[in-house]
Amino acid sequence: MAANLIAAGYHLTVYNRTTSKVDPLVAKGAHRAARAGDVAHPGGIVVSMLADDASVRALVAGEDALAEHLAPDGIHISMSTVSPATTRELAEHHASKGSVMVAAPVFGRPNAAQAKQLRICVSGSSEAKAKVRPILEAMGNEVFDFGENPEAANVVKLAGNFMIAAALEAMGEAVTMMRKSGVDPGAALEMLGKTIFAAPVYQGYGPIIAHGRFTPAGFRLPLGMKDIELVLQTAREANVPMPTASLLRDRFVSAIAKGRDEMDWSAIALGAADDAGIKE
Amino acid sequence: MAANLIAAGYHLTVYNRTTSKVDPLVAKGAHRAARAGDVAHPGGIVVSMLADDASVRALVAGEDALAEHLAPDGIHISMSTVSPATTRELAEHHASKGSVMVAAPVFGRPNAAQAKQLRICVSGSSEAKAKVRPILEAMGNEVFDFGENPEAANVVKLAGNFMIAAALEAMGEAVTMMRKSGVDPGAALEMLGKTIFAAPVYQGYGPIIAHGRFTPAGFRLPLGMKDIELVLQTAREANVPMPTASLLRDRFVSAIAKGRDEMDWSAIALGAADDAGIKE
Repeated sequence: MAANLIAAGYHLTVYNRTTSKVDPLVAKGAHRAARAGDVAHPGGIVVSMLADDASVRALVAGEDALAEHLAPDGIHISMSTVSPATTRELAEHHASKGSVMVAAPVFGRPNAAQAKQLRICVSGSSEAKAKVRPILEAMGNEVFDFGENPEAANVVKLAGNFMIAAALEAMGEAVTMMRKSGVDPGAALEMLGKTIFAAPVYQGYGPIIAHGRFTPAGFRLPLGMKDIELVLQTAREANVPMPTASLLRDRFVSAIAKGRDEMDWSAIALGAADDAGIKE
Repeated sequence: MAANLIAAGYHLTVYNRTTSKVDPLVAKGAHRAARAGDVAHPGGIVVSMLADDASVRALVAGEDALAEHLAPDGIHISMSTVSPATTRELAEHHASKGSVMVAAPVFGRPNAAQAKQLRICVSGSSEAKAKVRPILEAMGNEVFDFGENPEAANVVKLAGNFMIAAALEAMGEAVTMMRKSGVDPGAALEMLGKTIFAAPVYQGYGPIIAHGRFTPAGFRLPLGMKDIELVLQTAREANVPMPTASLLRDRFVSAIAKGRDEMDWSAIALGAADDAGIKE
């Protein structure tokens, strides 16, 4: 994503906890920051992409104090998949310090990010969104605006990831039923992926699940677990029972209990096979 | 489907319990049979599309005795969505009488059938499949062969319908979470249907679920209930627990309990909204 910004002509100051990770960007002309807080200056624009809520909170309101360093009028484009509650809290913190936070979580794996094929969901102040739009467009192939409520884009991102995980579980159950009924699940998922389910989720994960190719991981299983926890937390706050999400949570817990941490999150599909007495 | 066969140049003898339903076909030159058994003659080919297992069983092995009327060497193309166990039993009955049954269930709603856009899954004897292939191609836009085992195509059809129902439930839960979190579910499902879920199932049902447009029914809810029962029965025979299918069954039972029989099967998505205290 940073490389695409450089390619689009932006001058970047970059930071990663693992210094070596920014070396390729520095080689392309980016300036290396010694600390995360150093990427920000008053009125500037900062893009963050981090692993979890705690990391984003530490960046914005902790020692790095991004919200203060960007004031007055700087914008923080928060692209991590975090809870809507965290986004709400941090957007308020930004506002209290005189800066602005825009949520812009993405759909797409690392290869999509490289190819500038990310789908970006954005929400927050209209003025800030208009200002950062060219930056988002330099990182993705389409930007979808979900309004002024800063947490809206995070809700949509979680809904999407929940729907993907639900599709993984459904494929896992269907594949197990077909396999134990003497039917080739690979051929069946291929047919479905060409017809009524002709979408990236099914075309990408169908062969992985039918043929049990869960390594190398495109998206590690514990990250999927984190997202389902965020879904259930968001649903709990809105008083929404989500039985499929609860089932998915147990599939993730069980997959981790069985030592599948290094597999792709689609390995939750093995739960149905295990339950049906199929040995790995 | 029959009209497309006539358009392709086939001379049909047609039968429906409701006589008036075949009038348009008779007007196009089809011959009207007085009883179901009368559509068959020795060595002929019969296409059947019926509502449930009992109807197909009555046609093949009951008073109508299709298996006998087709002998020797006639072929019955059974296109109904029935259980693999019924197909196995009836294929054996056909064989015992000297005729052949080929399973050819379809994906596609009535409008797809009219437009010759059905996706047809076929399984059974290779010789019989080769003979009926032009007939199948006159009714659909693609034919997928799942081998010699006559019940295989029915297993695939049930797996596909299960995956559709699982997607309906996932959309129902996601839409409810979004609505109660203050996010427009219509815009979110539209985005997902253009990107990672760019497939007919999500593009077709997404707006129906987001906007609650469950009538008129494209596929009536009790028919979906029947299919999920067939999925669970097939899974039980193969010793495969399918927790998502069990959850779906309860959603269908509840929808029927609430008087939603005349709605489209996607109205199972209302279960998540009901549970979250949303009034219709």
